[in-house]
Amino acid sequence: MSISLSEIEAAAGRIAGHVLRTPVLEISPGVFLKLEQLQHAGSFKVRGAFNRVLSAPAVPAAGVIAASGGNHGMAVAWVARALGLRAEIFVPTVTSPVKVAWLGALGAHVTQTGAVYAEAAEAASKRAAETGALEVHAFDQREVVAGQGTLGLELLEQTGGVDTVLVAVGGGGLISGVAAAIGASRVVAVEPELIPTLHAALEAGRPVRVSVSGVAADALGASQVGALPFAVLGSSGVRSVLVSDEAIVEGRRALWGEHRVAAEHSGAAAFAALASGVYVPEEGERVAVVVCGSNTDLSTLT
Amino acid sequence: MSISLSEIEAAAGRIAGHVLRTPVLEISPGVFLKLEQLQHAGSFKVRGAFNRVLSAPAVPAAGVIAASGGNHGMAVAWVARALGLRAEIFVPTVTSPVKVAWLGALGAHVTQTGAVYAEAAEAASKRAAETGALEVHAFDQREVVAGQGTLGLELLEQTGGVDTVLVAVGGGGLISGVAAAIGASRVVAVEPELIPTLHAALEAGRPVRVSVSGVAADALGASQVGALPFAVLGSSGVRSVLVSDEAIVEGRRALWGEHRVAAEHSGAAAFAALASGVYVPEEGERVAVVVCGSNTDLSTLT
Repeated sequence: MSISLSEIEAAAGRIAGHVLRTPVLEISPGVFLKLEQLQHAGSFKVRGAFNRVLSAPAVPAAGVIAASGGNHGMAVAWVARALGLRAEIFVPTVTSPVKVAWLGALGAHVTQTGAVYAEAAEAASKRAAETGALEVHAFDQREVVAGQGTLGLELLEQTGGVDTVLVAVGGGGLISGVAAAIGASRVVAVEPELIPTLHAALEAGRPVRVSVSGVAADALGASQVGALPFAVLGSSGVRSVLVSDEAIVEGRRALWGEHRVAAEHSGAAAFAALASGVYVPEEGERVAVVVCGSNTDLSTLT
Repeated sequence: MSISLSEIEAAAGRIAGHVLRTPVLEISPGVFLKLEQLQHAGSFKVRGAFNRVLSAPAVPAAGVIAASGGNHGMAVAWVARALGLRAEIFVPTVTSPVKVAWLGALGAHVTQTGAVYAEAAEAASKRAAETGALEVHAFDQREVVAGQGTLGLELLEQTGGVDTVLVAVGGGGLISGVAAAIGASRVVAVEPELIPTLHAALEAGRPVRVSVSGVAADALGASQVGALPFAVLGSSGVRSVLVSDEAIVEGRRALWGEHRVAAEHSGAAAFAALASGVYVPEEGERVAVVVCGSNTDLSTLT
C-alpha cells in the first residue's frame, strides 16, 4: 500500500489557500531550513487536517474529533474554526500546558485523558463512535498522509531540488507523506533515542510498541508507528537515525542562538541530527531540514 | 544628496554570499512579512556593515569600530569575525543584557558607556581617532545606507512587487536605503511615539533632537535621524506614522502568538502599525512588513 504522487498533488490543490506556503532559509550553501514551524497553528499538521476534512463528502453536525499530543489537535481546531465546524480534541497528560491553553484559545472542546497519546486516542475513538463526529487521525489516514506530503513537493520547488531531507518522526505521517512525494531514498528519519517508533519497526519488520519519554514526548510520542506510514516506508530503504535528548536540547538552542528560529523540541530534532553530527552530509550534498513545530513556551528557550 | 540604485545594486553584489537572503512569508493574501530577523546576527544591520567594510580599500590593523544600541554592534562584530578583523564596539547602558552577552560571544571588545546611543557614539568617535580603526556608522554613511537598501531590492524580487513597505525607523539607515531602492512613495516609516526622530525631522524640515525612551529604545534609540537618511527622505514625501509602546508590545505578542515569529520590540514596531490599525491598507493593496530584528530575551515574550 502506498500513497501516489497524484494523491499528494490533489491534496496540494485542495489545501492551497488554506495553509501557508512556509518559507525556506538557506543557512549555508546547500543547507536549507524548511520553516514549517511558521505554519498555521505552529506545525505542519494543518496540511493533513485540511486535506482530511476537505476530502470528506460531508461533515456531521457533531463536527470533527481528534486525539493528539497537542500539535495535531491545534491543527484540527484551527481547521474547524476556519471552516465553521465544532471540534473535540483529546490530549494526554503529557501535553504541555502551553498547547492545552492554545487549544482552548482556538475554540476546541478539550479533554485531557491518559498518560500518552495512545491512551487519548483510544478515548477519542470511543467518543467518536458515540457522537458520529468525523475522525481526523494524527497520522494513520490516507488523506492525512497525503496532506503532509505536500510539504515535500513545496520544498523541492522552493530549493530547486535537494539530495536529502531530514524529517522528525512520531507516528510517521509527515515522513511517509514526504517520502511518497519525493522518494524515500532522499529522506532521513530522525527520532529521539527515547521514542524510536520507526527505527524499532524497521528492525522488527512491523510496527512495534515502544515506550514514550523525553523532551519531545508530547509531539513525537506515538507508541508505535502507524500502519499506513509503515506500509509506505517499511521496505523503502528509508534511512533512520536516532538523536539523544541532549542533542535535541542543544540543537533547539542553536536554532535560536545561531539562526533565530524558535522551535519546540520536536521541531528541532531533525536539525539536531545535523548539528550533532549524527547525520553528516557528503561534500556538495544539498540537505534540507524540516523545522516542523513551534508550539512551545519560549521561557524554556533562554 | 541621494543614494543611487546603482550603488545599491553594487552593494548587493558585494555582500552576496556574506549575508542571508532572508525569506518572505505571505501571512494572508497580499500581506508579506520580510523575515529579516533571521539574518546573521539577528538583524538587517550586517547588510550595511558588510558593504561598508568590503568597500574600504584597506582595513587598518586596529580593525573596525562602531557605536550601537546593540544590533549594529553585533552586526559589525559578526562581519569582523567573518573577515578575521578586530572589532571594538561601544554600547550605551540602555542596551539590553542579552545583546551585550551576544556581542561578547561574537568576540568583540565591548565598552558600555553613556546613557543612550548618541553618547556611546561620541565615545566611539574619540576612540577611533586614537586607534585609526575603520569606523562603521550605524546609519549615517553612504555604504551603510546602500547596504541596507539591498533588502528593498530583495523584497521586490521575492514578492513579485508590493505597493507598500512598512519599515521601523531609528537613525534612518534602513528606511532611507529601502526608499532609495524601491521609491519613497512606496515606503511608510513607523516609529515609536516615544522616539519620533524622523517624524519630528519631517515636521521641522531638518534633523532635530528628540528624547529617547520606551520599549524599543535600545534599537530605535538614535537621538536624531541621520543627515544622510534625512537628505534622502526629507523632501521625498515619505509617509510617517507613530505607534504607542502598548501597540508595539501587543504587536510583538501577536507576531509570536499568531504567526510564530519571535522578534524584539523594534522588530515588531512595523507590524504593530498594521496590527493596531495605525496603518490601514486599501482594498487589494499589497503590503510588506519588515521584521527587522530578533535580538531579544525570549523570556520577555511568554
